[in-house]
Amino acid sequence: MEAQAVHQFFFQLMVILLTARLFGELFARLKSPPVVGELLAGVILGPSLLGWMEPSQVIKLLAEIGIILLLFEVGLDTDIRQLAKTGWQALFVAVSGFVWPFVFGFGLSHWLFDRSLLESLFIGGTLTATSIGITVRVLTDLKRQHSREAQVVLGAAVIDDILGVVLLAVLYDFSRVGQINTANAMQVIGFIAMFFVLAPLFAKAISLVIRQFAKISQTDGLIPTLIVSLVLFFAWLAHEMGAPELLGGFAAGLALSRRFFLPFGMALHEDADFTGRIEAQMRPIIQLFVPIFFVMVGLSLNLREIDWTSPFIWWFSVSLFAVAIFGKLLGALLIRGPWTERLAIGIAMIPRGEVGLIFAELGRTSGILNNDIYAALIIVIAMTTLLSPMLLKGYYRYLRLA
Amino acid sequence: MEAQAVHQFFFQLMVILLTARLFGELFARLKSPPVVGELLAGVILGPSLLGWMEPSQVIKLLAEIGIILLLFEVGLDTDIRQLAKTGWQALFVAVSGFVWPFVFGFGLSHWLFDRSLLESLFIGGTLTATSIGITVRVLTDLKRQHSREAQVVLGAAVIDDILGVVLLAVLYDFSRVGQINTANAMQVIGFIAMFFVLAPLFAKAISLVIRQFAKISQTDGLIPTLIVSLVLFFAWLAHEMGAPELLGGFAAGLALSRRFFLPFGMALHEDADFTGRIEAQMRPIIQLFVPIFFVMVGLSLNLREIDWTSPFIWWFSVSLFAVAIFGKLLGALLIRGPWTERLAIGIAMIPRGEVGLIFAELGRTSGILNNDIYAALIIVIAMTTLLSPMLLKGYYRYLRLA
Repeated sequence: MEAQAVHQFFFQLMVILLTARLFGELFARLKSPPVVGELLAGVILGPSLLGWMEPSQVIKLLAEIGIILLLFEVGLDTDIRQLAKTGWQALFVAVSGFVWPFVFGFGLSHWLFDRSLLESLFIGGTLTATSIGITVRVLTDLKRQHSREAQVVLGAAVIDDILGVVLLAVLYDFSRVGQINTANAMQVIGFIAMFFVLAPLFAKAISLVIRQFAKISQTDGLIPTLIVSLVLFFAWLAHEMGAPELLGGFAAGLALSRRFFLPFGMALHEDADFTGRIEAQMRPIIQLFVPIFFVMVGLSLNLREIDWTSPFIWWFSVSLFAVAIFGKLLGALLIRGPWTERLAIGIAMIPRGEVGLIFAELGRTSGILNNDIYAALIIVIAMTTLLSPMLLKGYYRYLRLA
Repeated sequence: MEAQAVHQFFFQLMVILLTARLFGELFARLKSPPVVGELLAGVILGPSLLGWMEPSQVIKLLAEIGIILLLFEVGLDTDIRQLAKTGWQALFVAVSGFVWPFVFGFGLSHWLFDRSLLESLFIGGTLTATSIGITVRVLTDLKRQHSREAQVVLGAAVIDDILGVVLLAVLYDFSRVGQINTANAMQVIGFIAMFFVLAPLFAKAISLVIRQFAKISQTDGLIPTLIVSLVLFFAWLAHEMGAPELLGGFAAGLALSRRFFLPFGMALHEDADFTGRIEAQMRPIIQLFVPIFFVMVGLSLNLREIDWTSPFIWWFSVSLFAVAIFGKLLGALLIRGPWTERLAIGIAMIPRGEVGLIFAELGRTSGILNNDIYAALIIVIAMTTLLSPMLLKGYYRYLRLA
């Protein structure tokens, strides 16, 4: 009966929200980022430990809303002028932190572990994209989200997510037709480039319309419904243009932020109050949805599925893990700037997330990656995700910045 | 691919939110309750007109969250002392407005239209329960939600929803085993009675725990996650005890309201500030979810499925519609009080909703109601839902109260 599904869904959602809150609070008291607690909540509830819960389709979609709303908030908080100041550094960190893990991951798999060309390309690709969600949440938890290094990391994570998705599109094509289709790849790249340039301007125009509408509206609840619609629309648009959905959330947030740079500087002086109202009304919605995403990541891991007796799994995982960390650190250490800042950037770039999981999943479903390799990739993604917040927290404490 | 489902879900949700907003605003400008616009948005998007959208499982569940959050808000706004003052009247209106539509609907079907005993019982049952959601929203739109008649209607709608669910449980049993199982029926009735007495007290105790937790919490977003969890938990609990989920939302809201009557009057003076914070942070979440429910109701109707050339459909629908209106009016007109107030109560009791739809759906899936009867019931539910807000609006304007 459908009524039964409803109350079971209510119960599942309640357990997710409460467990996330409980472990988040616990980790906060242990002076660790709450996000690790939320991930752990998912691991505990999921097939890895208790097996109480499998992520249902509905919970997955709510988690997706969580991730785009998180990126919306990030965009809303972003100081675009500061991002522009760190632009070249962010670009360098992104490209460098994209290339090294890809090259090392590919080389390791192909030459040391004898995997096929296509398999090795997928493994390398999985290591490329930093999880913006995890990184940003950790930096926010540490109250470092407005620091210079956070701006570099944010910019770099956005850029290497895009690079990762472009690579994914190319590899997907490659796995389908047996050769790299340059025309298609160029089209995807073109769409994404266009989206990233035009979307914030377009979103800004829409936000001006919303503001006018807000003045004459005769019904309540305008901001929650219209702003969430705007975010959903840009997530959809991003997907349609071949970019990851969360990029749309980021673009929408950027457009509504206090310091968004508009051509001709029009209407900027009126924005502050409206942005303040948006922030106040969107925050509860964001706070409700975001933990669902992190619990979901924990739920998606099944640590029991792995054959722990196989030495291959151990060697492959450990060396891939080393490469995943070293590749990102190398990318950050090659830029200029204080040594402490570069190391912080490198550590913050370590966590892999959504795009990496999509890579691994696509490799598995298209038959390119076998179960062992897939499990190893998931472990590496999980480990980077769990390690980076702890390292970063420890490092900031060592520097006495948090 | 799953990623496709995600962006399609985003798009669907965006269309629902925007269309609801657009038609709600349009109806507000036509001096009609926005809720009718939101229902119409669903009819237009759904199979009845454009056929652009079928309610997916996810949208249905989001709509369910919407309805329990709406009832939570109603509970939060409820002045329990005033409800107690109108208690006997509400009880009378509820019982009377439950009995007459049931008796007339049953009699009409069984003796005039020659339907079987079980079929007629289901038809009568479908007409019993007033849709609290629609009624409350209309009264709120008219800014009459704190009036005396609104308190009576609210109390009566809550009570006749419970009566409806009890009847549904009994009929469900009857249709399964071929006879009325008195023991089971008594158990269901006992559970619901217990729930309605104990749930607000239990929720109050939990809310005191949440308030203490809020004082020592070291993480953000406490209120959205914990309060939504509380509402979900009570919805689940209500279901487990055989009551409709929305009753749990109402109980949770009641427990957190400013004027909830506590035994021994403990801790009442500290509540106002905490309730204020809850209201401010929950309102955007409520405003986001509630329109989804009303669009969903519109989407669930398929006016094209009906064979409009059959005279039976017309006669049956029209007479059932008359009975549905007359039964509720009669219930209200039999109480004491000013004639104008009694008529307003009667009109406000007319809309049938969730419970009626559940009745009809259960009758159809268990093979008791054929497609024609089912269609007629859906039409009657839709008509009462569409008519009552218009009548009520017109009536209040005539009385110069709105």
